[in-house]
Amino acid sequence: MTEQFKFHMPTQILFGRGLVKHLADYIPGEKVLIVSDPFLYKNGVAQAIGDGMTGKKVAYFSDIEPNPSCESVDAAAAVAREHSADCVVGIGGGSSMDVAKIVSCLVTNPGSIYDYYSGGTKKLCPRTTGLICIPTTAGTGSEVTNVGVFTNRSTHVKLPMVNNEFWPDIAAIDPDLTVTLPPAVTASTGMDAFCHAIEAYWNKESLPLCDMLAMGAMKLILKNVKKAYDNPQDMEARSAMSKASLIAGVAFSQTRTTGIHATSFPLTAEFGASHGIACSITLPAFMRISGELEQEKMQELASYLGYSCLEDFADGVEQLMGSMKMPLRLHELGVKEEDIPHIAEVALSAQIIQLTPAVMNMETVERLLRSIL
Amino acid sequence: MTEQFKFHMPTQILFGRGLVKHLADYIPGEKVLIVSDPFLYKNGVAQAIGDGMTGKKVAYFSDIEPNPSCESVDAAAAVAREHSADCVVGIGGGSSMDVAKIVSCLVTNPGSIYDYYSGGTKKLCPRTTGLICIPTTAGTGSEVTNVGVFTNRSTHVKLPMVNNEFWPDIAAIDPDLTVTLPPAVTASTGMDAFCHAIEAYWNKESLPLCDMLAMGAMKLILKNVKKAYDNPQDMEARSAMSKASLIAGVAFSQTRTTGIHATSFPLTAEFGASHGIACSITLPAFMRISGELEQEKMQELASYLGYSCLEDFADGVEQLMGSMKMPLRLHELGVKEEDIPHIAEVALSAQIIQLTPAVMNMETVERLLRSIL
Repeated sequence: MTEQFKFHMPTQILFGRGLVKHLADYIPGEKVLIVSDPFLYKNGVAQAIGDGMTGKKVAYFSDIEPNPSCESVDAAAAVAREHSADCVVGIGGGSSMDVAKIVSCLVTNPGSIYDYYSGGTKKLCPRTTGLICIPTTAGTGSEVTNVGVFTNRSTHVKLPMVNNEFWPDIAAIDPDLTVTLPPAVTASTGMDAFCHAIEAYWNKESLPLCDMLAMGAMKLILKNVKKAYDNPQDMEARSAMSKASLIAGVAFSQTRTTGIHATSFPLTAEFGASHGIACSITLPAFMRISGELEQEKMQELASYLGYSCLEDFADGVEQLMGSMKMPLRLHELGVKEEDIPHIAEVALSAQIIQLTPAVMNMETVERLLRSIL
Repeated sequence: MTEQFKFHMPTQILFGRGLVKHLADYIPGEKVLIVSDPFLYKNGVAQAIGDGMTGKKVAYFSDIEPNPSCESVDAAAAVAREHSADCVVGIGGGSSMDVAKIVSCLVTNPGSIYDYYSGGTKKLCPRTTGLICIPTTAGTGSEVTNVGVFTNRSTHVKLPMVNNEFWPDIAAIDPDLTVTLPPAVTASTGMDAFCHAIEAYWNKESLPLCDMLAMGAMKLILKNVKKAYDNPQDMEARSAMSKASLIAGVAFSQTRTTGIHATSFPLTAEFGASHGIACSITLPAFMRISGELEQEKMQELASYLGYSCLEDFADGVEQLMGSMKMPLRLHELGVKEEDIPHIAEVALSAQIIQLTPAVMNMETVERLLRSIL
């Protein structure tokens, strides 16, 4: 167990069914910008939340795409400035919440996201605009992290931006919002949350508080993800998944992630896999090597979750994924043998890969990828 | 599991051996007031921490008594104002940290603590003075709560004061500070931390994040408290106990406590028992009735901690306390049969007693107290 650690989670968490329709009291000022994707705007979810903000002047920006681009960020920031927003509310999966984080800063910080990110040299001044994040999936945990992930549309490079101004003031988690998720999305986002938990747990920068949270989150996911997949209306399972995603989010917000997420970047950027699929496809393989440096700790986890050993645990997770028709082999994403060195190289360029509890170099990462080709 | 909950822990946590000697970078402004008890001042601990605050002008107030009085608070506030303190640092068990919380507010809020507490009608304006709490025991968890407990010297009434201005900016936990604790204090403060964890877990206002933290804290305490008691120099056990106390503190900071703490108030105020003793003496008895409303949840906890059932778990905790020579019967504190109705009445006057997972009224509380007379 680490003998030195820091823990800081300044975001206030609100959890409950139906709560997002009554957020007015939590919103500073009068003018709100709600950021969402087009789907959540068209199906009325974003507007129902806005309508609940009694007495506020609400504007909407609903052009957020998956893996949001810096151009979308700048377009949303222009609307926020025009509206003189006192509070930015991000509603959605990771994308809209991530955009809301940087947009709430850009209301009072001049210029483009490029001035502050990916080669930009300006430093964000403290945020004075409120920031509320509302997840509509049970997966990303972005509502309780200080990270946004943005894509440079011209270079196709997807990079995380970490800033303490990105901690939302409030994370409002309402399991009712997840009830319309299609089974495939329930599976992929749910297993993304599982990756967050296990990557926090086996992380070289793990800490005891987060280990406990991660263990609890994994237990909830193993017990509930298939139920929510099989029966989207099972509110007990939905609620458990929302809790698990939140708790896994708190855990990895302190530790960062590891090889699974590092490897997901090229699988998403170059093979078009959704984030949840791009992460979970390597999950069983990373589990099998995690004993290299954390044998005892992984055995303890396996026992806690009802498995006899780490191998048995990895098999169980793989079977669970298979039972939800998730891809288990890289060729299902279109990856070919000759792509492997490049994927390994890009994965190794992400610093977080070195937080994996195993030796990570071209040889070991290529071997891992080949084992699941 | 509760379907609606809030979680907010704005305090930044720093944990590590030796870290309290290097806090200068975390301190806002130039002028620091260190609040401690006379013992920590005389033995040089408070000064060693002050000496590490390179470049700061440090003053000391070291007249804090156990169960601190409002008069001590006002005396410390006068020194803080005189010194124009930018930051107040509380070092000690619960008492000094609790005093530091209110004193950091009184630097810029005029008048006496009585103006804001126990019948006072003024409201504290937001704190602009920094607040750092440093525990020297592994027990109170006060470094991560927004509660201070103060005693009115003339009425002998001990009452908690809850205020969001009391969340420390920083909780700095250094296990090295606990190495000189005598075995009896290791035992009583360690079991106080155990009470925090179990009272968070079985609380009617429990929440999933805190359940997970509480379970982890209890596991650490059961594994390490006797080791730290037997061998005060065992730094691995000391470190585990410091972690457990911190984690239990985070858990109960969100849920509050229950019958154990409610009953401790008269046992401390009227029978002079230390806080840890006054709490843990009723712990096994409260464990035995906790199945009344939380049978399944308590069984799950017992299994997680390696016991076959709740009764077995309660017996195990009682034996552990006995092995550390802790009092197990109320008569050992001087309580007589005829005192029981009064103790029950005072305990029942604390609202938190109704968060216990069992029916709490004069009849049930008296019966519980008689069972351990």
